[in-house]
Amino acid sequence: MPNTQVTLVQIDNYGPWTVTPEPRREVDLQTLQSRLYADLSQQFGSRGGYVFFTRFDNMIAVTNGIDESVHRQVQTSIRNRYPVTTSFGIGVDPSPAVALEAATEAIQDAGSAQDAERREVLSGSILDESADDDLTIAHFDVNDATERLTDRLDAFATFAHIERGYAELMAHFYEAHEGLAFFVGGDNVIAVCPDLDRAAFEETIAHVDEAAGVDLKVGVGGGATAESAGMAAKHALERCRENGHDVDIDDSAQ
Amino acid sequence: MPNTQVTLVQIDNYGPWTVTPEPRREVDLQTLQSRLYADLSQQFGSRGGYVFFTRFDNMIAVTNGIDESVHRQVQTSIRNRYPVTTSFGIGVDPSPAVALEAATEAIQDAGSAQDAERREVLSGSILDESADDDLTIAHFDVNDATERLTDRLDAFATFAHIERGYAELMAHFYEAHEGLAFFVGGDNVIAVCPDLDRAAFEETIAHVDEAAGVDLKVGVGGGATAESAGMAAKHALERCRENGHDVDIDDSAQ
Amino acid sequence: MPNTQVTLVQIDNYGPWTVTPEPRREVDLQTLQSRLYADLSQQFGSRGGYVFFTRFDNMIAVTNGIDESVHRQVQTSIRNRYPVTTSFGIGVDPSPAVALEAATEAIQDAGSAQDAERREVLSGSILDESADDDLTIAHFDVNDATERLTDRLDAFATFAHIERGYAELMAHFYEAHEGLAFFVGGDNVIAVCPDLDRAAFEETIAHVDEAAGVDLKVGVGGGATAESAGMAAKHALERCRENGHDVDIDDSAQ
Amino acid sequence: MPNTQVTLVQIDNYGPWTVTPEPRREVDLQTLQSRLYADLSQQFGSRGGYVFFTRFDNMIAVTNGIDESVHRQVQTSIRNRYPVTTSFGIGVDPSPAVALEAATEAIQDAGSAQDAERREVLSGSILDESADDDLTIAHFDVNDATERLTDRLDAFATFAHIERGYAELMAHFYEAHEGLAFFVGGDNVIAVCPDLDRAAFEETIAHVDEAAGVDLKVGVGGGATAESAGMAAKHALERCRENGHDVDIDDSAQ
Ligand SMILES: Nc1nc2c(ncn2[C@@H]2O[C@H](COP(=O)(O)OP(=O)(O)OP(=O)(O)O)[C@@H](O)[C@H]2O)c(=O)[nH]1
Ligand SMILES: Nc1nc2c(ncn2[C@@H]2O[C@H](COP(=O)(O)OP(=O)(O)OP(=O)(O)O)[C@@H](O)[C@H]2O)c(=O)[nH]1
Ligand SMILES: Nc1nc2c(ncn2[C@@H]2O[C@H](COP(=O)(O)OP(=O)(O)OP(=O)(O)O)[C@@H](O)[C@H]2O)c(=O)[nH]1
Ligand SMILES: Nc1nc2c(ncn2[C@@H]2O[C@H](COP(=O)(O)OP(=O)(O)OP(=O)(O)O)[C@@H](O)[C@H]2O)c(=O)[nH]1
Ligand SMILES: [Ca+2]
Ligand SMILES: [Ca+2]
Ligand SMILES: [Ca+2]
Ligand SMILES: [Ca+2]
Repeated sequence: MPNTQVTLVQIDNYGPWTVTPEPRREVDLQTLQSRLYADLSQQFGSRGGYVFFTRFDNMIAVTNGIDESVHRQVQTSIRNRYPVTTSFGIGVDPSPAVALEAATEAIQDAGSAQDAERREVLSGSILDESADDDLTIAHFDVNDATERLTDRLDAFATFAHIERGYAELMAHFYEAHEGLAFFVGGDNVIAVCPDLDRAAFEETIAHVDEAAGVDLKVGVGGGATAESAGMAAKHALERCRENGHDVDIDDSAQ
Repeated sequence: MPNTQVTLVQIDNYGPWTVTPEPRREVDLQTLQSRLYADLSQQFGSRGGYVFFTRFDNMIAVTNGIDESVHRQVQTSIRNRYPVTTSFGIGVDPSPAVALEAATEAIQDAGSAQDAERREVLSGSILDESADDDLTIAHFDVNDATERLTDRLDAFATFAHIERGYAELMAHFYEAHEGLAFFVGGDNVIAVCPDLDRAAFEETIAHVDEAAGVDLKVGVGGGATAESAGMAAKHALERCRENGHDVDIDDSAQ
Repeated sequence: MPNTQVTLVQIDNYGPWTVTPEPRREVDLQTLQSRLYADLSQQFGSRGGYVFFTRFDNMIAVTNGIDESVHRQVQTSIRNRYPVTTSFGIGVDPSPAVALEAATEAIQDAGSAQDAERREVLSGSILDESADDDLTIAHFDVNDATERLTDRLDAFATFAHIERGYAELMAHFYEAHEGLAFFVGGDNVIAVCPDLDRAAFEETIAHVDEAAGVDLKVGVGGGATAESAGMAAKHALERCRENGHDVDIDDSAQ
Repeated sequence: MPNTQVTLVQIDNYGPWTVTPEPRREVDLQTLQSRLYADLSQQFGSRGGYVFFTRFDNMIAVTNGIDESVHRQVQTSIRNRYPVTTSFGIGVDPSPAVALEAATEAIQDAGSAQDAERREVLSGSILDESADDDLTIAHFDVNDATERLTDRLDAFATFAHIERGYAELMAHFYEAHEGLAFFVGGDNVIAVCPDLDRAAFEETIAHVDEAAGVDLKVGVGGGATAESAGMAAKHALERCRENGHDVDIDDSAQ
């Protein structure tokens, strides 16, 4: 049975900070945001977690196997090296969507994202024990993106096409299957899934093809951490590439 | 008259690299991509340029005022510090959309994004002279995102809502106005514009409200570089905040 | 009884790489080296380790509590994000000096630092169990460096003065006490110590004062990891500041 | 005639910050310092400057060709991305030693390094015009360091040996020749020189050999910026490697 632990990372009072005392240089904001994301990726990642950049001022992490003290250490490390602080809300549930709701509430209950007094919240619940089937990760990828898009269309058209496929996939996977799908660059989307069968993945791929004209394949893996499930998903995706299948579900995810 | 210089940055042969000899850890790819983006932001940014992350393996930069030798230096610096190399295509046109087409062609003509032999392409055309009205930048922002979304909905619903607004804005601004709009984090979108009047911005905001239910304001600025035009746009956006207007066009953009 | 685990980090075949095909830009080398150091600091540091930059192409880490699989993960992460690879030799001994000898031999036995075939060596021995008195860390600091040096002498004279004190401290602490002392910036030196009594620290401070005219204080702490011992040392140093003592040995180090 | 522009970079009120409200984790300080150094290297380096890490809380840069507005931009960029701010003092003189004195005074006159009120000082004088013989850079390197030291001695002995050579070189080059020599990692030292003839370099090498038993070679280059002079020095050093000479002075430095 899956059990996803999700951490919502929110930069404290970031909106006001970006314009105080006057608007800050955009390139510095971009650098700050992307380096903060890179650091969180390494810090949670070295313990098996995955972080998704989403809005950059709000990031979503899958943190199975990572306890409260590590969360606190990451928070401290950021405060020691950045001009901003971060709050973390943590939620756990078999449904990733529900886990994220809980994580969001844990932060919202402590105050507004633009409350100057609210700093370094760390609240919510942590998974007590971890099991090999806690996490299911799906790695979606566009078929022949290079030949059909990157090398043929202009860069904006390619980007818009992939974005449209991503928006459709993200919305559908959430509404129909309670999974959380995130764009991770290139033509790749990584999704955290509840307990789903093969038909759910086939249906999702068919839906995105129909609604947005984007042709996907997907590898699915399971594990106790995002990294182990995600790596199994990548190997499953490679098998799709080899044998031309649209869906490959690794044994670890069954 | 606007004249936009656009640079398309493409990581060479990145797809195959990510899975050779076997799939690489996703957190390392995420860190690599976001740090590469941060570096490019600083390198072009210190000369007045803006870089947008878009797909991360393909990034789009506004590089007015940045000559070929600086482009070459950035390429060399990346090669010296990363396990990958990059190709740059450059285009110039009053229409940002057309400039990007030219930039894309400059790269595509040199070979495929997955051609192992194609490395460090640098081609296209550079703006000879620069003028104060070369660039128009629009900074779009969602009204009351914190109160209406971040503090109220769960993080995924907020993100999906903003993404939908962004997708609509990006597609519409491109098709109706030949402008290039990019999500820059939070609830912010920055767009490079051709010569547009106030009505075009009002129409765009109305369209996004109607099509995606996302309520935007926009500040517009002009300048010889992305930074100067972008900073003027930010100040215009602050004036929107102060006086409640939806569109504020700075004198620099007229 | 102390038991120090030391990891020697060596960039593989770095000398030839810096000049192939022709000398690389020095600023890129500096950036590469310092970012690699920062990453190692975070990666070992998030598990309680300390890394010292020493020569940058050869770095020395105190890695008590960090097992082989984490070492391997760090190596992989570097290979995935940098244009160079690294070899790690690991040694364990009550004497830090002897532990480093063992770590060095572990690397040297696998080939030359400039052997193009030698890549990603990981050899040596790891501490099986960890105990609260495994590590003793001493944090040395110059008295009134700001008033007597930084604010008074020119920057080079200050730097030369501190360097001289550091060179003296490093050499003496190694020869007389088998400890490893490293400059960590500012006016601070951090040393990994064998089992030493208060007299050894007093003698060291007196020696440096006499030989180099540099007036030191020191806080000493103990723990199972570099971080816990090092933090105890910092608190001891703060007590020196408060009560004017030259040597403060925390209970954790006795 | 040489004319060196030196910038002293000082982190404002850093000592107190490191221990407020209690001592900060050393790994975070190390990461902060080395990333700040890397950023300054890139920012000044993209304009032809060199930065040396020296004490990390005080860094010394050679900034010929870099004007006040770029200095201000770098300061702002750091404030926007780090929890600390920096002050810059700038000095110009044919003698690098005198230029650094002037740079130091420019900062000291504005207040103490630990004055909580003193922030983001930017003072001193900038070179009006630049000429091809403004800078002379010498790149010193230990002969056969790999074979004689790295592959043979233990890592600390190697490091101590190189440090001793460096300390000797730094002190002698300053006192006898008014040049500023900085360790840049590995077995390399880069020095900014006044107008010196070949005999001065030969004498320096002989002195270091005698006083510290460290066997050096040196390449010397000239140029309008640190980068061009430094790159010429690297090519001169390669010629030493090829033809076995101890001193090679490039035409650009004559
Ligand atoms: N984040 C991430 N991006 C990847 C990964 N693999 C590939 N990509 C991205 O996807 C882009 C396209 O590469 P591929 O998917 O291999 O190429 P393709 O042309 O679509 O070919 P097929 O997928 O084999 O049909 C690359 O440039 C990368 O940006 C991965 O494991 N993680
Ligand atoms: N990239 C970027 N992001 C910004 C900027 N200003 C604000 N943001 C982002 O926008 C988010 C929301 O902040 P605001 O737009 O100030 O807040 P709001 O609640 O929408 O309020 P109003 O826009 O004033 O109606 C912040 O968390 C940032 O992520 C900016 O200049 N650049
Ligand atoms: N790496 C590191 N450097 C530190 C630490 N504390 C202080 N420093 C450095 O030491 C420099 C001088 O600060 P202090 O030692 O506090 O100042 P001081 O004038 O010598 O005063 P006292 O030591 O209190 O006599 C700072 O600029 C920092 O670079 C620390 O914990 N770690
Ligand atoms: N900062 C910097 N370090 C360098 C450079 N070239 C080499 N190094 C360092 O010097 C170390 C030793 O390399 P070499 O000097 O090539 O090796 P060597 O064994 O001493 O051989 P020879 O100098 O040719 O006698 C390398 O590991 C690097 O750390 C350079 O251009 N800049
Ligand atoms: Ca693909
Ligand atoms: Ca807003
Ligand atoms: Ca001190
Ligand atoms: Ca050498």
